[in-house]
Amino acid sequence: MVVKSQIKFIKNLQQKKYRTQNKLFVSEGIKTVRELLNSSLKVYKIYVTDSTVLEFEGDFVEVISEGELKKMSGLSTPNKVLGVFHIPVSEPLDFSDWVIALDDVRDPGNLGTIIRLCDWFGVRSLLCSSNSVDCFNPKVLQATMGSISRVNIVYGDLQRIFSNSEVPVYGAFMEGTEVYKEKFPKKGILVMGNEANGVSEAIEALVDKKISIPQFGPKTAESLNVATATAILMNEIRRG
Amino acid sequence: MVVKSQIKFIKNLQQKKYRTQNKLFVSEGIKTVRELLNSSLKVYKIYVTDSTVLEFEGDFVEVISEGELKKMSGLSTPNKVLGVFHIPVSEPLDFSDWVIALDDVRDPGNLGTIIRLCDWFGVRSLLCSSNSVDCFNPKVLQATMGSISRVNIVYGDLQRIFSNSEVPVYGAFMEGTEVYKEKFPKKGILVMGNEANGVSEAIEALVDKKISIPQFGPKTAESLNVATATAILMNEIRRG
Repeated sequence: MVVKSQIKFIKNLQQKKYRTQNKLFVSEGIKTVRELLNSSLKVYKIYVTDSTVLEFEGDFVEVISEGELKKMSGLSTPNKVLGVFHIPVSEPLDFSDWVIALDDVRDPGNLGTIIRLCDWFGVRSLLCSSNSVDCFNPKVLQATMGSISRVNIVYGDLQRIFSNSEVPVYGAFMEGTEVYKEKFPKKGILVMGNEANGVSEAIEALVDKKISIPQFGPKTAESLNVATATAILMNEIRRG
Repeated sequence: MVVKSQIKFIKNLQQKKYRTQNKLFVSEGIKTVRELLNSSLKVYKIYVTDSTVLEFEGDFVEVISEGELKKMSGLSTPNKVLGVFHIPVSEPLDFSDWVIALDDVRDPGNLGTIIRLCDWFGVRSLLCSSNSVDCFNPKVLQATMGSISRVNIVYGDLQRIFSNSEVPVYGAFMEGTEVYKEKFPKKGILVMGNEANGVSEAIEALVDKKISIPQFGPKTAESLNVATATAILMNEIRRG
């Protein structure tokens, strides 16, 4: 039996304010929780409605009722397991390899997909502007499919970091050089813009090289989704 | 003032059954409706809460109250415009260029993103297995950003079509040949699998060439999202 105050405490972690205050985040569903338990993340508490669903035992596992889970969950149909983990401390960005930077990406699904892409393409460092969506937002976590524990995500001031950068800053722009013509160096920063407005003017001024993904056939599509554009550009960088 | 039965009729178009029955679909939001009005699609009716939001006039435009819009909308916060369009008749697949085929892609966001990608990369023909999500599902339409009118989407039996295909069938598989080593022909079919299970066994048996997107760094990510994988592979096919 979970006390009311604890249920409220967990439920509040759906909101960024409380996550930041308590340095904790919530992840739901057997598969993702299991992956996070196997990662370097530190667990705070795991709530299960059925003690057999996880192969983990420990002080941090508590069996609760479905009613209790429903009260603390952020999902309309909670799925047996809710894990609470400590938000890891970000490491410094590693500029010896490529760094992906996001200039106000707001959609949780897009950020989650980009984190998963970083994991796939072995990009360790992801820099997000402070107005980007929070990476511990439950919808982001759902889209990352466990990759959250393997990418170092840093929220910071893109302008300050780009101004002091010793590596070239590449940016995705509609009017950039065709990406196929680009010979990418071993390290650099690739900045991707906001869903509606692209890269902001202040950041654009700090971009060394504008690149674009060519359109084929009649030029009818207005743009590509930021996550798919990131996929294509990361692939271009890695394929060499 | 809209009669009750008409409100119910429009609201029902949120469901595939009624869309199929009436050969009509609903699209919401100023931007998308405007794009569809400018496309080859045939309009059935446009409901607006404010006659000044669209530059279109005609018998098919009806000004309604916000309360009425809320009743017929599929959104929790309806956005001034609701358009009803005729579902276009599919044309035959064009095998003189690449055709993208989806083997039970179920997520509306993924299908919408793939339709938008087809538009970007000039792929005219998209073949979906009959168990794939309906392309006139409102969530699909939202993700297509208007591209729905520029891609010929055909629902059909992949097995039958692949068996009779004169062009090579490529498929995305974890264990396929590295895509960078592939020299793609001018025409072919690229089949992408279901989100959880990939390409089904029956379809796998008809694939001529399995390809995969290499992973970099430690092989920690389990897979790529189907829409981002499609983005990367379409880019590989088009870049030549």
